[in-house]
Amino acid sequence: MTPYRQLEARFHRIEALDEALRMLDWDTAVMMPPGGARARAEQVAALRVAVHRELCAAEIEELLAAAEGENPWECANLREMRRRHAHAAALPDALVEALSRVRSECEGAWRRARAENDFAAVRGLLEQMIALTREAASCEAERLAMSPYEALLDRYEPGCSMALIDRLFDEMGRFLPDLIDAALGRQAAMPIPAPAGPFPVAAQRQAIVQLVARLGFDFSSGRVDTSLHPFCGGVSEDVRITTRYDEADFSVALMGALHETGHALYKRGLPANWRLQPVGAARGMAIHESQSLLIEMQVCRSRAFCTFAAPVLAAAFAGPGAAWDPEAFYHRQTRVRRGLIRVEADEVTYPAHVILRYRLERAMIADELRPAELPGAWAEGMRSLLGITPSTDREGCLQDIHWYDGCWGYFPTYTLGALIAAQLFASARRAMPALDEEISSGEFAPLLAWLGEHVHAKGSLLSTAQLIESATGQPLDTAAFESHLRRRYLG
Amino acid sequence: MTPYRQLEARFHRIEALDEALRMLDWDTAVMMPPGGARARAEQVAALRVAVHRELCAAEIEELLAAAEGENPWECANLREMRRRHAHAAALPDALVEALSRVRSECEGAWRRARAENDFAAVRGLLEQMIALTREAASCEAERLAMSPYEALLDRYEPGCSMALIDRLFDEMGRFLPDLIDAALGRQAAMPIPAPAGPFPVAAQRQAIVQLVARLGFDFSSGRVDTSLHPFCGGVSEDVRITTRYDEADFSVALMGALHETGHALYKRGLPANWRLQPVGAARGMAIHESQSLLIEMQVCRSRAFCTFAAPVLAAAFAGPGAAWDPEAFYHRQTRVRRGLIRVEADEVTYPAHVILRYRLERAMIADELRPAELPGAWAEGMRSLLGITPSTDREGCLQDIHWYDGCWGYFPTYTLGALIAAQLFASARRAMPALDEEISSGEFAPLLAWLGEHVHAKGSLLSTAQLIESATGQPLDTAAFESHLRRRYLG
Repeated sequence: MTPYRQLEARFHRIEALDEALRMLDWDTAVMMPPGGARARAEQVAALRVAVHRELCAAEIEELLAAAEGENPWECANLREMRRRHAHAAALPDALVEALSRVRSECEGAWRRARAENDFAAVRGLLEQMIALTREAASCEAERLAMSPYEALLDRYEPGCSMALIDRLFDEMGRFLPDLIDAALGRQAAMPIPAPAGPFPVAAQRQAIVQLVARLGFDFSSGRVDTSLHPFCGGVSEDVRITTRYDEADFSVALMGALHETGHALYKRGLPANWRLQPVGAARGMAIHESQSLLIEMQVCRSRAFCTFAAPVLAAAFAGPGAAWDPEAFYHRQTRVRRGLIRVEADEVTYPAHVILRYRLERAMIADELRPAELPGAWAEGMRSLLGITPSTDREGCLQDIHWYDGCWGYFPTYTLGALIAAQLFASARRAMPALDEEISSGEFAPLLAWLGEHVHAKGSLLSTAQLIESATGQPLDTAAFESHLRRRYLG
Repeated sequence: MTPYRQLEARFHRIEALDEALRMLDWDTAVMMPPGGARARAEQVAALRVAVHRELCAAEIEELLAAAEGENPWECANLREMRRRHAHAAALPDALVEALSRVRSECEGAWRRARAENDFAAVRGLLEQMIALTREAASCEAERLAMSPYEALLDRYEPGCSMALIDRLFDEMGRFLPDLIDAALGRQAAMPIPAPAGPFPVAAQRQAIVQLVARLGFDFSSGRVDTSLHPFCGGVSEDVRITTRYDEADFSVALMGALHETGHALYKRGLPANWRLQPVGAARGMAIHESQSLLIEMQVCRSRAFCTFAAPVLAAAFAGPGAAWDPEAFYHRQTRVRRGLIRVEADEVTYPAHVILRYRLERAMIADELRPAELPGAWAEGMRSLLGITPSTDREGCLQDIHWYDGCWGYFPTYTLGALIAAQLFASARRAMPALDEEISSGEFAPLLAWLGEHVHAKGSLLSTAQLIESATGQPLDTAAFESHLRRRYLG
């Protein structure tokens, strides 16, 4: 076997172990009884160490030095193998195990702390988490010749620089505050009839199953379940999305499920020929998020989608009526609010939530902000970015799982994803003049085919920048996002 | 670190990976969509290979040669480590991977073949399974200095010999046929009122949750779900039992759940101080089955239990009435029938089902019976043992998952378990004169405490034979089982 083929065989096994880990993560969030947490932490730590050891094996380093790809896919596969090996080899086994344990413990403590609005109860574990994450970031930064924060970013969004993020976020900072004001002013005078609840969970679930299936979610290779925090887990042949239900407001579950469906369609559309190889994986979390936001924001909050979906929801919950008028539904779907909770934010105010977290996590990794100062810094940031202040940590720095679960350097990908989604959808529209009509009649296959060809089936063949250029004809910028917002909210 | 401590650290990781595997097995049976099967097979194969490699590492062999235990638990832990290592080291990696793959494929094919009653559709994979199993059995037999079939037995029931099984099964053969005839004759004249269904699944589930909780099932560290084939999966801090529902006959789900609860209580009661060490594991499948049968057969089909449970079930399904009279319920719970399906068999005819499978699997492993001849041999065996013949393979050699899922040498443990259960329960009764009264008032804590002390908390400290002698004061024989049957069915 050539060195390249040997690497393929080794990475096949590594990716299969990694898939096992992802299935357990799903179980932890969706099925596990509380008493199972300690045992699960051991299982996950053992698996992470096994993956890490396989990635760091001396033979891998030798094979990577010797291997050559024979075509663009093999070359890209080698590039991704090298990247994974470099991240892993930078970290000693003991650090991987310690991080895995603190992740499990801190995540559990966060669930309790959030429920009881008690930041102090999780602060100690968060401090440990930050110390270990900083140590890991330094190790990776040295090996990868980048800054520690960029080494963390690189895990989720390979090749992403702070310079790029800063430039894009600054550009948004120039138009968003005025745009928020203008949209709020315009909506203030708009009377919007809302349907009266309660919306029974069973009826919500049935409508969700119907809509996500119509969008292309494949129930023969996937499931829709319930969890505290909606997410898309599982693997491409067994995609597991979750949502959460509020009987007073069906849009919580619906929009959660539609967002995760975007992730699911990407996962399901990854190149099957390259399954269990690094090049067959999703390109990165910015592209992943672009796919969920393209479905949630660009498609499912459009007038066209509301035309299709309003009657489906009316049938699920009640008879027709003014509140189920597609136009009223569209107005509810595009309502702008200055809110404290990121996952409830509209697309106009959402970037402010991300910018806040980006600034805070950079500062914490740089040791310029200590966890004890986090609640205060959070409140101040919210005030300066959106003019509102949380009255409790549950509405502040306890609201998101990410930091407590070890996902540092992840937040910027949400807003990068929103920018990419806008740019991709603008290109899809140019390529398919009938797209709006298709969406309004519930025909999503043409859009899915376009995304499949230009994004999903590419896996990790291209870099994120190359993928965006090849799909949209130009580098990533904020123009498509800005004109999308102006058209939808001020047009 | 001493060699012993190094081994503890290594086996901790091995057991944690093995637990991950068990959680995935649960998911496969309970949650996985059909399209996920191929990916799951890869995940499971990768994990099995990882466990196998860790078990076979050269350092383990050296450490095992050097290590010494400082107390009985450590010595027993070393004995179990040596046994696991010997089984694993006998098998080359490639055989482990090939077996894992054929198990996944054959199990999937069996599900379809059983649904369509088409033995031919799975025969080819079964042939591959047997060839690989025979190869593995030969490798292990050579290393462990036992016969190939005993090497398979030893995986499930360490130290069990064919000589012991043959002796016990022969003894049963001397009293069971007459006992079956006599019980059937006695029951033929007995009118037994049966409640009218249907029994809605939700009501069945609610009654099951209530009863298994009363028996001691801990929902904070466990779940009760649904699967095609009831089983007890998961790990001691996260025990997952399943059952299956028939709206025409609530006893299918109820007795499935009660049986699995016996397994669950054992798992949950294993010594917490030895979690993730071989000595902390269940002693073997005969003891495991003794715990499920002790709960299902000795306890839950007793007059005392029926006195407690009949009103609970009456409340769940309907008002009172003659069919819900405890005595009528007891008669239904102890009905003897010559049936074709093992999992529906009563305790009097059950051994015949096991004896048949034991004879057939021994012959297949010895290459004295080919899969093509299996349906015929099955029919002939059923005729000679119970006087009935299956009209389809679904009622014959397609009914059980075991052979298709790679569990060869497992079947005898069911009947060994029934014998052990009878002997243990007779001892428990002698030790606790008020046991029947406690059971009839729904008090299971004293029995659970006795089982905990004499069985559960011992883990794998003792051999099966030692465990039985220490708990009951004598070696395993058929006397307690025989007198239990005579008392219950002819008394």
